[in-house]
Amino acid sequence: MTRFMDVHHGMQGITADQLLEAHQADLAVEGEEGVHFERAWADPESGTVYCLSEAPSADAVLRVHERTGHTADEIHSVPLEV
Amino acid sequence: MTRFMDVHHGMQGITADQLLEAHQADLAVEGEEGVHFERAWADPESGTVYCLSEAPSADAVLRVHERTGHTADEIHSVPLEV
Repeated sequence: MTRFMDVHHGMQGITADQLLEAHQADLAVEGEEGVHFERAWADPESGTVYCLSEAPSADAVLRVHERTGHTADEIHSVPLEV
Repeated sequence: MTRFMDVHHGMQGITADQLLEAHQADLAVEGEEGVHFERAWADPESGTVYCLSEAPSADAVLRVHERTGHTADEIHSVPLEV
């Protein structure tokens, strides 16, 4: 398992409820892809959302986001952490 | 206090030791700016580093990073979190 940070752009105006709903949709299907979404942070002003996950591959992370209707714009493995 | 995510680009090849050293340098001076850096994640391949902090302002976060020699390329307040 590797840790990943994925980034969504264009989410201007996202609300706390919408972020929670999107996260819960991911949690509902993540197990089928072997992924776990740990946390997510959103900036409604710039429309940026960051999602931290553990997954077998970047493709697995992206598949979960695609299945739940919010494809990520960027994804990076982040093997280093402090 | 607001939570912030800042992003550094161009850090290709960063090592675990270098990430730790940079984080510890931030921790050593953050109190003078009222900032606390919680976690940081790095992708040595793309050269991307994400830092999660709590701070009174974006400027305070940037001042800490400038004082420790690694200015951030982007910073976003992330008031929403799951």
